[in-house]
Amino acid sequence: MLPTRLAILGPGLLGGSLALAAAARIPGIDIRIWARRESALDEIRTRHLARLASTDPAEVVRDADLVILCVPIGAMPDLSEIIAPHLRSRTLVTDVGSVKADIVTRLAAIFEGRARFVGSHPMAGSEQAGLAAARADLFENATCILTPHDEPSRASAGEVAAFYTALGGIPRELSPAAHDEIVGLISHLPHLAAAALVNLVCERHGEALNFCGNGFRDTTRIASGPAAMWSEILRENSPALRRSLHGLIDHLHTALDLLDQPDALTTYLDTARAHRDRLTARH
Amino acid sequence: MLPTRLAILGPGLLGGSLALAAAARIPGIDIRIWARRESALDEIRTRHLARLASTDPAEVVRDADLVILCVPIGAMPDLSEIIAPHLRSRTLVTDVGSVKADIVTRLAAIFEGRARFVGSHPMAGSEQAGLAAARADLFENATCILTPHDEPSRASAGEVAAFYTALGGIPRELSPAAHDEIVGLISHLPHLAAAALVNLVCERHGEALNFCGNGFRDTTRIASGPAAMWSEILRENSPALRRSLHGLIDHLHTALDLLDQPDALTTYLDTARAHRDRLTARH
Repeated sequence: MLPTRLAILGPGLLGGSLALAAAARIPGIDIRIWARRESALDEIRTRHLARLASTDPAEVVRDADLVILCVPIGAMPDLSEIIAPHLRSRTLVTDVGSVKADIVTRLAAIFEGRARFVGSHPMAGSEQAGLAAARADLFENATCILTPHDEPSRASAGEVAAFYTALGGIPRELSPAAHDEIVGLISHLPHLAAAALVNLVCERHGEALNFCGNGFRDTTRIASGPAAMWSEILRENSPALRRSLHGLIDHLHTALDLLDQPDALTTYLDTARAHRDRLTARH
Repeated sequence: MLPTRLAILGPGLLGGSLALAAAARIPGIDIRIWARRESALDEIRTRHLARLASTDPAEVVRDADLVILCVPIGAMPDLSEIIAPHLRSRTLVTDVGSVKADIVTRLAAIFEGRARFVGSHPMAGSEQAGLAAARADLFENATCILTPHDEPSRASAGEVAAFYTALGGIPRELSPAAHDEIVGLISHLPHLAAAALVNLVCERHGEALNFCGNGFRDTTRIASGPAAMWSEILRENSPALRRSLHGLIDHLHTALDLLDQPDALTTYLDTARAHRDRLTARH
């Protein structure tokens, strides 16, 4: 069942894109957006992103079927405490945080007995941030991970999945812990590796960037993401990310050894190619 | 002065794209292509890539103004020995190899007194390989590195630069050694890091690729390149690549430390963002 009244808390890239996508794809949906700052409300109103835009979270979540927390993870618990008394027990709450295990536990405790809650994480983003970069098609073909943590939230996950599907996304379920491990590998580690690559290159050769081809450009695109936001995400997932980093360091040591072993190096590269080709074939 | 008779030796992605680009952008140019196998000649003829297509290198280079070696680096010396007696002393020879110091020295010795030679390396490519992937616009906005090794080759570099400029490329000069150091950082290291990332992810979680977003897709695109070709390139440049790999490993250890230092981590990511943004702005 798709929501008829949608409350989006936080009008950044994800919140803004959720509003645009829902308006485009769910006929008649009533969208409300909360923003911390008055200045953000102006842009929301100018772009007609919502029927109601307010800095009062209680006003925005009242009567909503689906509430989506789109603020930084660090701001989620306080905001949840503020809205919880204003929700109906049937209201479904989800968040779009990039790290899950810890925050799902905290938010589930806050909403316990006051509303239904299930965590989620649409793997949609861009190196750009903020409402200005929001797009109606951001979720098209994007994997949207649901992270149910108990039996009731498993039932709710189906409803959030249906919402992401309506927006063009591809829903998949993972436990909060498995989410953090996998996203640590496929998102957080590549981000840090891209930043390391850029910093290394610029430290070694001030002019090296003048010679880059598309390979380097693509490989490091994500390093253009907003630093403060990513710093928070990486630290939130530091236990899983540490394991990923150690794994990558081990693989780079292996690569050093393989430079002396032509056949083994070719096999290593071909294994990577075969894996990576599966990814190309999918979309 | 642009060439009027162009001999391309090796009809792969680069050789085929050079033929397409030269035909499209240099009016009246007479293009000849050498291929090792008869079967490749059929495709060259079907696509009308050249006025002359032959498996006889002597026939293809005869009377050429510009000869471009587009075969794997390992095959360049033998092929150069074969063509050298058939060149005129004014003929200009270049190669498109991805590694320069060693091969430039060897090829310069072979062509000494028989033709002019200067190494080059167009930073244009794709994760696809072969003539089927060749495109007339492959060199548009691509950095094309010239690697003169002595005074005469410095003079010749200007002619090859003019040729790449005519094809839409952006020529830049580097010494052969500086080329290998910089390309080791911006091309060979990212390739190996992308392969390591893919292999690590698939080894840790068989299902992880099902959850990937565009970030991982872009970061690892180059890992889809042909393994045997890249294996040769990486080994050819192993001294510089080893230094790059050690540098990246050091940076990843730094990253591990920074996970405990919020402000320093943000600064590290923001430094990378600022560097990477320069790259976005350029094209």
